[in-house]
Parts: sequence; structure tokens; C-alpha cells
Amino acid sequence: LPVIKIKEVAQLARVAPSSVSRVLNDHPDVSAEMKARVLQAADLLGYRPNFLAQSLRLGATRTVGFVVRDISIPLFAGIVKGAEQELENHGYSILLTNSLQNTELEAKHINVLRQRQVDGLILSLQSEVNAETFKALHNVDVPVVLLDRELSGLATDAVLFDHASGVREAVMALDKLGHRRIGLLVGSPETRSSRDRVRGFNIACEELRRPVGWDNMVRVGVTTPDAGAEATLSLLDLPLPPTALVAGDAQLGIAVLAALRERKLRPGRDVSVVICDDLELFRFLDPPMSVVFRDAEEMGAVAARMLVKRLGDASAPPLREMLPTRFIERASTGPPVGGPSPAPAKAKHPAAATSRKALV
Amino acid sequence: LPVIKIKEVAQLARVAPSSVSRVLNDHPDVSAEMKARVLQAADLLGYRPNFLAQSLRLGATRTVGFVVRDISIPLFAGIVKGAEQELENHGYSILLTNSLQNTELEAKHINVLRQRQVDGLILSLQSEVNAETFKALHNVDVPVVLLDRELSGLATDAVLFDHASGVREAVMALDKLGHRRIGLLVGSPETRSSRDRVRGFNIACEELRRPVGWDNMVRVGVTTPDAGAEATLSLLDLPLPPTALVAGDAQLGIAVLAALRERKLRPGRDVSVVICDDLELFRFLDPPMSVVFRDAEEMGAVAARMLVKRLGDASAPPLREMLPTRFIERASTGPPVGGPSPAPAKAKHPAAATSRKALV
Repeated sequence: LPVIKIKEVAQLARVAPSSVSRVLNDHPDVSAEMKARVLQAADLLGYRPNFLAQSLRLGATRTVGFVVRDISIPLFAGIVKGAEQELENHGYSILLTNSLQNTELEAKHINVLRQRQVDGLILSLQSEVNAETFKALHNVDVPVVLLDRELSGLATDAVLFDHASGVREAVMALDKLGHRRIGLLVGSPETRSSRDRVRGFNIACEELRRPVGWDNMVRVGVTTPDAGAEATLSLLDLPLPPTALVAGDAQLGIAVLAALRERKLRPGRDVSVVICDDLELFRFLDPPMSVVFRDAEEMGAVAARMLVKRLGDASAPPLREMLPTRFIERASTGPPVGGPSPAPAKAKHPAAATSRKALV
Repeated sequence: LPVIKIKEVAQLARVAPSSVSRVLNDHPDVSAEMKARVLQAADLLGYRPNFLAQSLRLGATRTVGFVVRDISIPLFAGIVKGAEQELENHGYSILLTNSLQNTELEAKHINVLRQRQVDGLILSLQSEVNAETFKALHNVDVPVVLLDRELSGLATDAVLFDHASGVREAVMALDKLGHRRIGLLVGSPETRSSRDRVRGFNIACEELRRPVGWDNMVRVGVTTPDAGAEATLSLLDLPLPPTALVAGDAQLGIAVLAALRERKLRPGRDVSVVICDDLELFRFLDPPMSVVFRDAEEMGAVAARMLVKRLGDASAPPLREMLPTRFIERASTGPPVGGPSPAPAKAKHPAAATSRKALV
């Protein structure tokens, strides 16, 4: 058994077994001295995680299935990488499927991976309410780790992003810059990421005591680039348009930028822009984009560790780990043109009342 | 057998079997009338490609393994999508592996997919000379389609990009703008894409009869972002630096942009830039990037069709299909500062001799 082997290495190195696994998993919080000691012990004992892994757990295939809802979403490259590096250390290979954001394919892929006898599943699902997916999951008899989704009635391990915290931070920062009318575009309400971003927005509104007038600037269910551009244009066409826009994901961010370009509005000067996701190229745009960052590789690594733990102990209660998101300010956010913008028509904020009069 | 079923649908709809498959594959060149007729016939006969697919070919798993060398390369999202849509129409699911650009993992993944009994393999390999990969492929007894690689001694179906044609076009266009010193950065010489880009560069040089002096501006084996930035800086530090740079892939393109930014040089004005690959965000950069475009989805679709054909006829000679690449001009390429730049020191071009004297 691998636990015993790790224990032997730990005993010889005179460290805790968890330290051995941290060293072998190349965890950053490990001293050079500790690392040298563990690697020497592992070497002396001939401990090879991969070699060992292959012959473990009679009947196991040493493969983990990973249902990715769309590999064209850059986030998943990071999640898969994080999971793969961690699982590789434990002797597992990953088999991926790509569901092309199609719920029917997603359910099919769960079945395909089950038939291919994977030892466990990591799932990035399109929706939280798809009946076919539920049916497919019902037949799964291996451990499952859910990524950033909540399925009611299904008690599995899960890794979630705290989208609300990053969006809240972004809105607070925009408010501090003087923005009183902030638009938010998010995807399907059937996914918790969208709902959580709206929640973060509302938390900020409550903290700022400017809750009311912003309601008409939150667009939920914007799931395609075209819909993103359209929603942006419709927000810009409001009598009192938003002076700042928060785009719920990278794709929506690009759609917002396309719409602003169409109107010849410059991000950061004419309209402030925050995108929920940090692509490398966002830093190369002019101006560089302010973003809500989430650590994709960390999500993959945490999910993989959960799955490995679960494969060793099926009876423990389901785990749920929440990863933070955070606002990173770059030049696409700045003060609104002409100083703090009046709040929208319905707002109770004094500035809003004034501007409403001015308009009427 | 599926062929007979398609024939039955074709007979009832009074169209050719190929038309049926075009309709079912949602081919664009199908009239609405034809589509309605075929779908009605398929409906009447209860023809369901997916349902049918499952029970076909005794012992077949209806899965295709796809070894992707690195899903973080955006190109692969397109290739996988193209292959998946095509294979899905034929009742196959794709199982992907992600090799993290690691040749050891790559060989392992070929074995994992073989053990999971896929019916065929599509391979995007890291290198063309890795012994472990060869060994793993030697044990594969299902059809293989190779993407953009040439493995000597291995007669398989292959889909290749004609990288040379697009790079040649780009260099010709740069020359027309007045550039006489053009730098080229490409990845590992162990992959045909790199070699083919250098070939395209050389073809242009020969056509322009300005072959000599450019040799010191071609950098081969630039495989990491850091190496890309370093190579760019070293080119800019030449006594007569290039006035235009061609980056062999998207990652190298970003590295070139980072290096130019470090030197406060603006693409398209101070130095012209062409990137071999078209990311959506390249169009949003200021200036938008000129690129060498390749159709990723088409490569995936062609590979899938080849594999399906091969699964139906193992004895046919191996096929090799070449897909074009082409130069798309945007604002990151413009005339060099101060008109046509003199050719580099070693060049026989008259302009070069003059400028050399001026320097000495």
C-alpha cells in the first residue's frame, strides 16, 4: 500500500508523512533542507511513486476521467495542468473529454468514461440542472469531484471559486474611483459562478448603501459573444449609461471590448472595464485590463488531491473547498469622465436625484 | 452496417448516399429542400447515427484517443473541436490526453489510450525523434492519424499545415513594404512546423534574390517565452537590427511583443511584427496583429474523416493531406522607419554595402 511506503520514507527521513507527500508533490512551502532529506530517504528505499502506483488497488485502471465543458475556455488549460501534475505524482493518468458546452455530450461523456472504467471523475459541468447529466451521474460508482458547481441532492467533494469576493472588491474599487453606475454582465443563471458574481455585486451595493439603482445594469444569461456585445450596447444606450462595466468571464470581456470599439469608446478613459479572468494577452492590450483573478492551476491541484484522498477513504464526509478570487487593478479602470458619475435614475443616492432632475 | 442504413435512407429520399451523410454531418453546401427530404427519410426509417454507432463493429469501443501535446496552446481547442464534431457524427467519442509538452508523458499516454482500447488514435506529438514515443507507437495496432508531424519509417495517415506558404507570403509582403532585414523566430528544429517556416522564409529570400544576409536573423530552437524575449532582444541588439520580426507561433509572438515593450518599440511603427497563428485577442491589440493564419478546426475535421475512412478500409495506402496557411495583413506591419532599410552586413544587395561602409 502506498501509505505504508510513504510512512517508511517518512520514518527514515524523520518527518511527517504529509511532509513526504508535500516534497514529492513539489509543494512550494517546503524547505530545501527538508526536501533533500526526504528525497534521499526516498532514494535509499527505492520509493518511486509512479512505478508503485501502477500495481496498486487490484482492478484499478490508474486513470481519472476529467469532463471539461469546453477546452477552448483558457481557464481549463490551467485547471487540467494543475490536476495532471498532482495526479501524475500519484501514478494516475487523466483522460479528458470536451463537451463543447453541450449538455447532451456532457452526459454522454460521463457514460463513456464510466465504460472505460476510470477510477474517479473530475467534472466541470455546463449546467447545474441538466436531467441527463444527473441520470449519468446516478450510475457512476467511482468518486467524483465537482468543479465550481453545486448539484442539489448530490453529496460529492467539490472545489469552488469564491467569485463573489473578487467582484465585490472590483465594485468597491470602482466606487472609490468615483463610479456610481456600474454594469455587470454574467453568463447562465444555471451556474453558480454567474449567481456568485451577482451576489458579490450585491454585497458591494449593500456595503456602499447604494443598492437600488443598479438593478437595471445587471445582465444575467449573457452566454454568447454576440449577446455580450448586444448587452453592452444596450447598457451604453441607457439614458444614464454605466461608466464602468464588469464582464463575468474572458469571452464576455472580449465582447465588451468589441462593443466599446464599435462605439469608439476607450476602456479606462471613456468607460472603465473589469474582466473576470486573467488571460496573458489582457496585459498586452492597450490599456492593460483590470481583472478578477482566479488560480486555475490551484483549482486543478486541489481537486486532484481531494480525489486521491477520496480514493483512499471512501467513507469520509464530502469535502468542499473554496478558493479566493481577487481584483487586480490595471489601466482599464480609471476615474469616470467628469468626476464621480451620478447614480442611476431609481437610486436614492443624493447625486442621483440631482442628475435625474437635470434630465427631466 | 451503417453503410447499408445510409443507403436505405438515400434510396427513400432518392438522393446519393454521400448527400445523406452531408445532411447528417450538417455540411454547409446542402439545400434546404435536400435537407428536409433526407431528414424526413431518416426519421421514417428510424435512422439514428449515434444509436446505431454503439452496436457496430463487434469489439469496438467507439472511442478515439487524441494525444494533445499541450491543451494550453489555443490552436488545439480548434483542432479538437473540428475532430469532435466530425467524429460525433459518426458515433465516436474522443478521449483526450494532455502531454504538457513532455515526451515521456506523451509515450505514456499512447500506452494508456491503447490499454483503454480506443479504436483509433489522433496524435499531436511534441517531437519527431523521441525514442519512447516510437516504442509506444510500435505497439499500437489501431489506425493512427498524425497531425503536422513526419515520423520517418512510420507509414500512417497524416494532416499537415503548409507553414512555408504563409511565411513566404508574409516575407514577400514585408519586402514589398520596404523591409530588407527580417528576423524569424521558430521553435524546435525537431518539429516540421519549425523547419517548414524556415523553408518558407528561404523560399522568399530566393525569390527576392536576397538570400545571404538574412541568415543571422533566423533563430531556431526558441521554445520558451523567456528564450523568445531573449532572442528578440539579441536581434534588436545587432549592429543592423531587423526592421521586421516573424514569430513562429502565438507564444513566441507574445514574447516578441514583451521584448518590444521592454525596449519601448511600437509594433507596426518602429518594428513590424507578424505572428504565425491568429488568436482572437490579436485583433484587439493596438495595433492589431498581422498573422499567418491556419485553420485549426479544418485540420481536426480532416483528421477525423481520415480516421473514419481508415477504420472502414485498413488496406488503402496511407493518405497525406496538406492544408494551406495564409498571411493576413493588419496594422502591426507597416513600412520601415525612414523608408526601405538597408540589407544586413553580409548581404550582396547594393544597399547593404553602402550602409556597411557608413557603419565602419
